[in-house]
Amino acid sequence: RRIGRKALAVNLSDLASMAARPEAVVVALALPRAGGFRLAVELYEGMLPLAEQFGTAIAGGDTNSWDGALVIAVTAIGRLTDRGPLLRSGCQVGDRLLVTGSLGGSIAGHQFDFRPRVNEALQLHADYQLNAGIDISDGLALDVSRLVGASNCGAVLQLDTIPISDAARCLAKSSSDGQSPLDHALGDGEDFELVLAVEPNEARRLMADQPLDVRLTDIGSCVDQSGLWSACPDGRLIPLQPTGYEHQLDE
Amino acid sequence: RRIGRKALAVNLSDLASMAARPEAVVVALALPRAGGFRLAVELYEGMLPLAEQFGTAIAGGDTNSWDGALVIAVTAIGRLTDRGPLLRSGCQVGDRLLVTGSLGGSIAGHQFDFRPRVNEALQLHADYQLNAGIDISDGLALDVSRLVGASNCGAVLQLDTIPISDAARCLAKSSSDGQSPLDHALGDGEDFELVLAVEPNEARRLMADQPLDVRLTDIGSCVDQSGLWSACPDGRLIPLQPTGYEHQLDE
Repeated sequence: RRIGRKALAVNLSDLASMAARPEAVVVALALPRAGGFRLAVELYEGMLPLAEQFGTAIAGGDTNSWDGALVIAVTAIGRLTDRGPLLRSGCQVGDRLLVTGSLGGSIAGHQFDFRPRVNEALQLHADYQLNAGIDISDGLALDVSRLVGASNCGAVLQLDTIPISDAARCLAKSSSDGQSPLDHALGDGEDFELVLAVEPNEARRLMADQPLDVRLTDIGSCVDQSGLWSACPDGRLIPLQPTGYEHQLDE
Repeated sequence: RRIGRKALAVNLSDLASMAARPEAVVVALALPRAGGFRLAVELYEGMLPLAEQFGTAIAGGDTNSWDGALVIAVTAIGRLTDRGPLLRSGCQVGDRLLVTGSLGGSIAGHQFDFRPRVNEALQLHADYQLNAGIDISDGLALDVSRLVGASNCGAVLQLDTIPISDAARCLAKSSSDGQSPLDHALGDGEDFELVLAVEPNEARRLMADQPLDVRLTDIGSCVDQSGLWSACPDGRLIPLQPTGYEHQLDE
């Protein structure tokens, strides 16, 4: 059930990242033959409440069984509002980078329980001028570098402002891999929070309003120099590793 | 390429079975990591010409890699004409059963090369009164029994009228499994031809017109008695096995 919910939720988060309203999803399942029926029922039991919450129809798809392991592929279909899509490619040099919620350590549970930021994205896109956006699926550092890369600019992150989740702090304390809470916030995937690029005055207005139930934090800005950077107290820029989960596909 | 084409074509055939016009498809791929990129390219090279032929957008989906074998799931999205959907449940007792093309032996090549009967279904649905329809994906006997089962009636097939493909005849000759050409026509899957239930007068008109490039054949009728039957020369009905490919899914 948790996996079914998650498979749907990550796709709703993709719609959120474009400020699209969920309309319908199609679900493709390749089920192991043994126990496949029960598995299918439980996956749907996990999906249905979330689909209902977001007014999304599970409109069809493809169900098959085979001799392999379970495969789930969900495709969500959304409708744009009259504000059009929120794209990755709209960052302007000087834009502030705002992030919803807190980051890191999603492996402790958030990866299953997160609420996709669909309503938050729609609300902000309707009431404010957002230049660009992305959802954090593979890690803040990697996804921010994708966001600004698509906009032909770079980003400076103010590392001391990045909102670190309690889960990231716990994980850093309990594991011996030498990763700090900030490392987790930068590099862990599956936060499914939004990063938004907003012109400075509009960002100030947004930060003052704090119109969402979840906190918005200003974590940096878009800069001319491509790549990902962190700012030292003296103003120098140091390259920041775009850590995160890299999908592998060989030639 | 052939597998990519087929994965799309079987879904277009599903739209044909409901007399829906293809609008868009979503394609979900779980690719083996090694060689996955090249495989993805070739699958799409197989899909794109067919998508173009049928004016269908490949509108998105999901692409991932993993340590398992290739999984492809295509979901086609269609638009109904103002005649509404062609359903399985519309057979009336007395309806004639008409089939497009010839059947059996698709394993020899037709399973990859077939043209989904989208245009044929749209044309017939627009110009004639069709009561019900299905496409033959798992075998004529099995799919006819599904068709009439959904309509709460039965079917009598006139076995001597069933159009047998050359491939089915070759297969019967070359293999030693004792299956006749008719056995292949009845039980082989993946013909992707249409079976249509049509009121007798309308069926006569259709058979006289032969409005398609492919031949329409009258192979039997819908009867009150549920199940699948063949008619003896003396009029007696003999139960006919609903042979075909049965999808397995265990509790």
